[in-house]
Amino acid sequence: MFDNKESRTSLSELGEFGLIDHLTKFFDIKQTSTKIGIGDDAAVLNFENDEVVITTDMLVEGVHFDLSFMPLKHLGYKAIMVNLSDVYAMNAEATQVTVSIAASNRFPVEALEELYAGILLASKTYNIDVVGGDTTSSTSGLVISITAIGRAKKEAITTRSGAKPNDLLVVTGDLGAAYMGLQVLEREKQVFKVNPNSQPDLEPYTYIVERQLKPEARKDIPGLLKALEVQPTSMIDISDGLSSEIIHLCKNSKVGANLFEEKIPLDPAVISVCEEFNIDSTTVSLSGGEDYELLFTIDQKDFEKIKANPNLTVIGHMTEEHEGMHLITRANQKIPIQSRGWNSFTDAKDEE
Amino acid sequence: MFDNKESRTSLSELGEFGLIDHLTKFFDIKQTSTKIGIGDDAAVLNFENDEVVITTDMLVEGVHFDLSFMPLKHLGYKAIMVNLSDVYAMNAEATQVTVSIAASNRFPVEALEELYAGILLASKTYNIDVVGGDTTSSTSGLVISITAIGRAKKEAITTRSGAKPNDLLVVTGDLGAAYMGLQVLEREKQVFKVNPNSQPDLEPYTYIVERQLKPEARKDIPGLLKALEVQPTSMIDISDGLSSEIIHLCKNSKVGANLFEEKIPLDPAVISVCEEFNIDSTTVSLSGGEDYELLFTIDQKDFEKIKANPNLTVIGHMTEEHEGMHLITRANQKIPIQSRGWNSFTDAKDEE
Repeated sequence: MFDNKESRTSLSELGEFGLIDHLTKFFDIKQTSTKIGIGDDAAVLNFENDEVVITTDMLVEGVHFDLSFMPLKHLGYKAIMVNLSDVYAMNAEATQVTVSIAASNRFPVEALEELYAGILLASKTYNIDVVGGDTTSSTSGLVISITAIGRAKKEAITTRSGAKPNDLLVVTGDLGAAYMGLQVLEREKQVFKVNPNSQPDLEPYTYIVERQLKPEARKDIPGLLKALEVQPTSMIDISDGLSSEIIHLCKNSKVGANLFEEKIPLDPAVISVCEEFNIDSTTVSLSGGEDYELLFTIDQKDFEKIKANPNLTVIGHMTEEHEGMHLITRANQKIPIQSRGWNSFTDAKDEE
Repeated sequence: MFDNKESRTSLSELGEFGLIDHLTKFFDIKQTSTKIGIGDDAAVLNFENDEVVITTDMLVEGVHFDLSFMPLKHLGYKAIMVNLSDVYAMNAEATQVTVSIAASNRFPVEALEELYAGILLASKTYNIDVVGGDTTSSTSGLVISITAIGRAKKEAITTRSGAKPNDLLVVTGDLGAAYMGLQVLEREKQVFKVNPNSQPDLEPYTYIVERQLKPEARKDIPGLLKALEVQPTSMIDISDGLSSEIIHLCKNSKVGANLFEEKIPLDPAVISVCEEFNIDSTTVSLSGGEDYELLFTIDQKDFEKIKANPNLTVIGHMTEEHEGMHLITRANQKIPIQSRGWNSFTDAKDEE
């Protein structure tokens, strides 16, 4: 896929150290907690007495992304978002990342430059420092492993396990768009296979395609909740779909939940594309995944503080554990919520 | 390679969450700095006012390891060592790791259990907590990405850039064994290809093979230096070979160095195997790599404190930058030290 590029420098020309220097030369240090960044055996950080949160995620070509429609710059950006989202889900501020990449010789240096351009853009936009990493060859494909680090006051840290019965269940933004964006991209890929001269018109799908290709993590939410003086009782990010994340919150907090179908926030574009694809929009929001919104619970006394905020939607409430987890449909039916979390060992994308 | 095993559970049977739970169930929390371990969106740590060091390394099948002679348990152990070594090279204590693994469906659950058994053994032996990670599928081969975290007082942190002219250059342990162990293993692999019934007699090579397959990181050195009241002026770990690491220290510290060939510590087993393979033992220690010893510089006034220690060998001294970096041979010749750092993009092991 990179054969048409005029400039094509093989990875081995630069060598491992030259490549790391080359790719990371535009990264600078912005966080006061970063004492030493890239270039020694390890980075050195200092968080004074704050809690340090740390999370890691690995993205594998052919499993988590498809380079036939995912531009490398977007991929670099998204790889950072996936990890920052986990930091924000602890109600913490993201401060640093490390980035390790294994790439086969199929990728010229220019391709990795594109990937790092996305990582650089994400690090500037989200005010995080890239403090380390590793760049190595692989025998096939591209693997990206990122570790994200953040900080928070001890009292702000929010886990999955603090929800209480009667707490309100709140979600940020809207759901299902990333999944429907993927459906559109996969359809266009099939069309392109049949007719390589076809020019896809993605204009009507701008929002949902962008949610798939360039998701944004909810950096704003920990600060917003602090400003609203709301300490969530539990929190998780929505990477695998709403139903899977509700189950995690309930199991970790030992509570049940009622989720109201009519409250689930959907963008009009999602509703119309679901109609076009003849897919139920509730199913998409429950099982679609990759929205990188935050799902959290608050004490009922905090409802007044959040109710006017356009970023936040109350979609249900927690119950006693023995009551179980249910979706209350628009027709007022009570349906058990079942896990359909994404499983990379069975749900991998087609290899190409 | 796992087809002969009686029990063979496919990764997809357990699913992603089931697999992580299954593999990490034996990990417990030992460090007081670990507040929350595996199981939430992120781990939560607290290092009070200490500096936090963080380092990451990725190991790729067919590039960094060869499963035809590397047992998976050893591989898990070694993957941890590679990362801890970078923490110790900052003169810090290692406290936590995260472990991300991508494995193709060629690997049954039992294979990953072996890998994690090695990780568990390393975490117990080195008193570190496994606080997070990711387990995902890959389209081919095995990729292991580890991030290690450590702590140190600010005044103890030792970088690559503090060496001064006239400082003494000191190395721990002995060099070249891991590389010669690899030569023996690769020879036996070729013999096995020709005659699959041959039983290799590795007994005479126990030490060097163990240095290759089960390296140990120098956990003891930061504590030893503290006990000796020696604050090194610069430090690095020896992963790519002595010459490459000396160059790093010199370039980062803006100094030169004289290295004395006769001082380089070699185990008798290395000397005899070098004779057997007709390889120069100095070349092996300069370029061999994977020893995971520590190389550091100290002020001359500290010489008395370290000179009697069997773990530490003074192998040279730093000079003014313009004097350059030289090996002083046994014949008193002065040869420039050149980088022959390992480059994964050109030096990858054969794919099989």
